[in-house]
Amino acid sequence: MSKALVSTQPYRGTRDFYPQDFIKRQYIFDTWTKTLTSLGYQQYDTPVLENAEMYILKSGEELGGKQLYSFYDKSERHIALRPEMTPSLARIVAAKFGELNFPLKWFSIPNCFRYERPQKGRLREFWQLNVDIIGLPAGGVDLEFLYMTTKLFEDFGASPSQFEIKFNHRQVLDKWITNNLLTNHKSIIYNLLDSWHKTDLDYKERALQEIGLNSKQIKKILSIKDDTEYQNIAIEFDELKLIFENTSVAMPNVNISFDPTIVRGLNYYTGLVFEAFDTNTNNPRALFGGGRYDDLLDIFGKKAPAIGMGWGDVTMQNFLDNWNLWPQNLERYTEKVGIMPFANSDLIRIYKEILPKLQKEKIPFEIDYDYGRSENKRYESLKKRGCTQIIKIK
Amino acid sequence: MSKALVSTQPYRGTRDFYPQDFIKRQYIFDTWTKTLTSLGYQQYDTPVLENAEMYILKSGEELGGKQLYSFYDKSERHIALRPEMTPSLARIVAAKFGELNFPLKWFSIPNCFRYERPQKGRLREFWQLNVDIIGLPAGGVDLEFLYMTTKLFEDFGASPSQFEIKFNHRQVLDKWITNNLLTNHKSIIYNLLDSWHKTDLDYKERALQEIGLNSKQIKKILSIKDDTEYQNIAIEFDELKLIFENTSVAMPNVNISFDPTIVRGLNYYTGLVFEAFDTNTNNPRALFGGGRYDDLLDIFGKKAPAIGMGWGDVTMQNFLDNWNLWPQNLERYTEKVGIMPFANSDLIRIYKEILPKLQKEKIPFEIDYDYGRSENKRYESLKKRGCTQIIKIK
Repeated sequence: MSKALVSTQPYRGTRDFYPQDFIKRQYIFDTWTKTLTSLGYQQYDTPVLENAEMYILKSGEELGGKQLYSFYDKSERHIALRPEMTPSLARIVAAKFGELNFPLKWFSIPNCFRYERPQKGRLREFWQLNVDIIGLPAGGVDLEFLYMTTKLFEDFGASPSQFEIKFNHRQVLDKWITNNLLTNHKSIIYNLLDSWHKTDLDYKERALQEIGLNSKQIKKILSIKDDTEYQNIAIEFDELKLIFENTSVAMPNVNISFDPTIVRGLNYYTGLVFEAFDTNTNNPRALFGGGRYDDLLDIFGKKAPAIGMGWGDVTMQNFLDNWNLWPQNLERYTEKVGIMPFANSDLIRIYKEILPKLQKEKIPFEIDYDYGRSENKRYESLKKRGCTQIIKIK
Repeated sequence: MSKALVSTQPYRGTRDFYPQDFIKRQYIFDTWTKTLTSLGYQQYDTPVLENAEMYILKSGEELGGKQLYSFYDKSERHIALRPEMTPSLARIVAAKFGELNFPLKWFSIPNCFRYERPQKGRLREFWQLNVDIIGLPAGGVDLEFLYMTTKLFEDFGASPSQFEIKFNHRQVLDKWITNNLLTNHKSIIYNLLDSWHKTDLDYKERALQEIGLNSKQIKKILSIKDDTEYQNIAIEFDELKLIFENTSVAMPNVNISFDPTIVRGLNYYTGLVFEAFDTNTNNPRALFGGGRYDDLLDIFGKKAPAIGMGWGDVTMQNFLDNWNLWPQNLERYTEKVGIMPFANSDLIRIYKEILPKLQKEKIPFEIDYDYGRSENKRYESLKKRGCTQIIKIK
């Protein structure tokens, strides 16, 4: 036995999926796929490698900058590992813009790559469910999209008490900022809202004092969640009114609420934005997030309204762990037959009689070839390999 | 409409999978998964990113060198996109060597990356079915493994006339080379056999003259396929004898033959090697290949006998195309209901009455929100979206 030349550990921030881990990941992917297929969505995929410029131009400072895995290939093309799916989706929709039959209801479960410090819920390689409807402007479809997100919970057996959905609207926020003469401080306000639940009142107050706001302005911002002016602007938007009026019918019992602190960073979004949270407070990170981005295709010179969302496999696993929602038996088969020949000459019978019968019923099997060992040991070995029935060939 | 800033083409040698393409790829993956599960194999996965040294040490000149996508991450770790799955498999098996319950019957369907000139059957990103049995020495299990490969054809509806499997044995070849005093020319002979069907007699003869062989030696090598000495060495190997004696029972009707020209490059293999071919000559590249590699885990300081194979999604697609083996209807659903409301106030009825019914039966739906258009146009639009039945909400 020689000395190890290379470490057996996976690259930092990535995971190995042994069969017992793979089966859990696959359960999530299969459930997502089943739910979305039953709602009329179609699956697509794109390459892991993309032109790096696409992210540098479109994905913002973090994803398109310090978190981007990019390098030059052997013919000096600047390429990157996708940090998110949306730019690739925009690219392939733009590429066949004239041929595609809009609206598109599409989903994908890509692995994405981000260079960051690995921590709970954040890894360097993760999978992310991406769901999008492209080609329909804001209106009834936004409600349909929120309805879809609740079905994703339902099909994992989650009860409405285990999660909540919060939504906001970029144009409402922007109008409120304008009305309150805060336009010059828009990006600070966005940042503050984005980290609303991660910072305390003191921090927020100081941040607003630092940019020179007066105490009346600061009070206004700090009470944004209960601000009647904010609510009144919201109700004037037909597309939000539609959501307010229909959620209790479309999503009965689901805890869904309008929340001015939901902004989803600085990128992309042009209308509705939303996030979902685990009501178990040991899991504070958003489970998924999304919103309307009507400028999705602009860097490709096309125009189509769109709404989309992303849900990572890591937060999904955490949610299922928290509420113990994993099915009892994740194995793909329940019975497995062990076969115990005693010499190579017994193999003929196995292939002639045993396997054709098992294969007809799609019953998996294990063959023990260790003719020299005691029957007892061979029996134990087949049992350990998962065999519930053992056939001796004698 | 603005000008495109970024190309909509995928990176050279990679593919976009629109829903109609995705569904074909998924059919292949699903069929592989179903077959292997029914044979008792379990699925695993590993990260796309790995320590580059692993390939440089183990994957040989091509995969570990000029074809390797490698780069340094932001903390100067030398990482690579996996060009093949085998080193990762070896790594994760070595990592839990003491805990795993051998033998392992495992499979995976990873995407792999190779920097090469894109051509028919070869791309820079491709998926590859990898199947392995780890922990059993040569013997009955090699026959079981060949049997498994024929099941992979069967479950796609392929008939035995559409493919052939050829096998050889590294130790037979090496013994024959030694017996004929050709040990100094081993790597040339391996290369010549590896490209046997891509080169003509003249080329082979010249290559052998160039290294100074005499005409008797050259004649011996050129007639290796029919050489009785070669066949006699083979029969002396118990593990080959077992295969010779059982193939007609284990794989009735399958065209499987012993062929001294099958060598599988220079890497890895220590015993049985095999390849499968499309009998349709417009598809000359091997469909899959594999063999026994008992030194699989050596760079990780462990020892376990193993046999494995790999089958690319591109050659699989070519095979299904060639013989028209795609199922008639690849869609995941056959019926889809179109819903036509006439005002936002109709949405309540959709969510209250229509969708709960459809969702109960998992029948997918499309809703048309274009209240302003003529009924005829809306009807056509829903039909184009795949709806076979249309419900008007009035």
